[in-house]
Amino acid sequence: MQPLEKENIFIHNHRVGYAETDKMQFLHHSNYARIYENARWELFRSKGISYASIEELGIMMPVIKMDTTYIKPAFYDDNLKIKVEIGELTPVKVRFDYTIVNQNNETINKAQIQLAFMNSKSGRPTRTPEFILEKFKEPEMV
Amino acid sequence: MQPLEKENIFIHNHRVGYAETDKMQFLHHSNYARIYENARWELFRSKGISYASIEELGIMMPVIKMDTTYIKPAFYDDNLKIKVEIGELTPVKVRFDYTIVNQNNETINKAQIQLAFMNSKSGRPTRTPEFILEKFKEPEMV
Amino acid sequence: MQPLEKENIFIHNHRVGYAETDKMQFLHHSNYARIYENARWELFRSKGISYASIEELGIMMPVIKMDTTYIKPAFYDDNLKIKVEIGELTPVKVRFDYTIVNQNNETINKAQIQLAFMNSKSGRPTRTPEFILEKFKEPEMV
Amino acid sequence: MQPLEKENIFIHNHRVGYAETDKMQFLHHSNYARIYENARWELFRSKGISYASIEELGIMMPVIKMDTTYIKPAFYDDNLKIKVEIGELTPVKVRFDYTIVNQNNETINKAQIQLAFMNSKSGRPTRTPEFILEKFKEPEMV
Repeated sequence: MQPLEKENIFIHNHRVGYAETDKMQFLHHSNYARIYENARWELFRSKGISYASIEELGIMMPVIKMDTTYIKPAFYDDNLKIKVEIGELTPVKVRFDYTIVNQNNETINKAQIQLAFMNSKSGRPTRTPEFILEKFKEPEMV
Repeated sequence: MQPLEKENIFIHNHRVGYAETDKMQFLHHSNYARIYENARWELFRSKGISYASIEELGIMMPVIKMDTTYIKPAFYDDNLKIKVEIGELTPVKVRFDYTIVNQNNETINKAQIQLAFMNSKSGRPTRTPEFILEKFKEPEMV
Repeated sequence: MQPLEKENIFIHNHRVGYAETDKMQFLHHSNYARIYENARWELFRSKGISYASIEELGIMMPVIKMDTTYIKPAFYDDNLKIKVEIGELTPVKVRFDYTIVNQNNETINKAQIQLAFMNSKSGRPTRTPEFILEKFKEPEMV
Repeated sequence: MQPLEKENIFIHNHRVGYAETDKMQFLHHSNYARIYENARWELFRSKGISYASIEELGIMMPVIKMDTTYIKPAFYDDNLKIKVEIGELTPVKVRFDYTIVNQNNETINKAQIQLAFMNSKSGRPTRTPEFILEKFKEPEMV
């Protein structure tokens, strides 16, 4: 039983649009990064933190690593569920772990995406804000 | 004989990428705006003005109107020629006129795109910078 | 009083994603075409017709004309409402009319987009399918 | 001394367009996949094989794995050099290895992308075509 994961997992929905398809009929692989981005900020929003409010504090969160495995293709009009959770959260970076399933409950894609924290004025790395550590910390074991 | 148009016309090349195609096999219609944007700044660059240098002066040029006619489809790997010229240039706005031909010399697309000049600090409209008016003014008739 | 428009208007929601922004901080103008596309097929879906089912009948609907007016910019995380209705429907083409309002109820964008009907095997124009004309015909005046 | 790599390395150029930037001023991370795709097919074209001709033979090459490391950001109008080479070529898959450097010769991005070979009719995996193995095989050691 993993209460942490259960609490912090979030499911984002995405309907595959026509513009996202390619001549192979597939959701083109370049579109997943954008879908993953939307999913992680909806996870944050569900915790009461909008990414916009983080940037207003002078902190930006650029992607520094993205590893994606394409297991099965997605097609036009597919109704995708993007499961996202925080896989790692340290004082200097955060990693989001993703699984996408389609409407037939097939796992079609997995990804791990690392982001850094950056001071938007200096462009230099900065530490993970305390309120983010606080929100996503493991619940106390009783 | 139109010396103005001859002088100010510019031809930008674009190879249709796989990511730009859709399941209909066509260059998806949403991609033309991006291609047109690249073409107009290459026209400017050919005149010695990079768009980056305009923004450094505190001026931004948002699109305010875009009218596009899709005549024939373009396909993966097509070698497109985007003909761009300034159709209108006034103290408050500029209009770019476009024609796209493919490698078989077929006209596949036409567009007119208007941009405004905006002060990037205030977000308010501003006048066309003098050096732009100067660069693109009609040559003297002798 | 316009019963036709009231019946056939549809409102699609779009949250502006980070990938859609540009260095001017605006929702980049090239993204509207994609948003409009999603909106029109959700209008169709609300009438019981998925665009996927139209393509399964061997009919494709390429865009042949798109006129867009950018009135105000949209920004990251804006919650846009895209109002879409059928402005014209004839035996050979259909025109969708759009208005986008933001979360402050400001009208930020308007567009008219014409699509043709095409036989997907021959690539030739074809007539508007009867079931589409039927679904969107004006209600009888009593 | 690595004659294989020297022979098979290819350098593709990409000018960062405005539409590719985001509000952080960076080339948005979702755009790299598209740039990498263009680079690998230009590598193939330089060897006399267009990707279009591969698809005409009934073979498609979907991406099955993409690992990207974002080292430094790229900015609007940057003139990027994408170095691409075949890192692995077996009877069932191919891996492309990438390094991007900017106009200041700084390495900003690295990636490894695996593609499979798929029969476009059946949608099933197929073996690497002989003419591709032939083109990219290691030169004989003398």
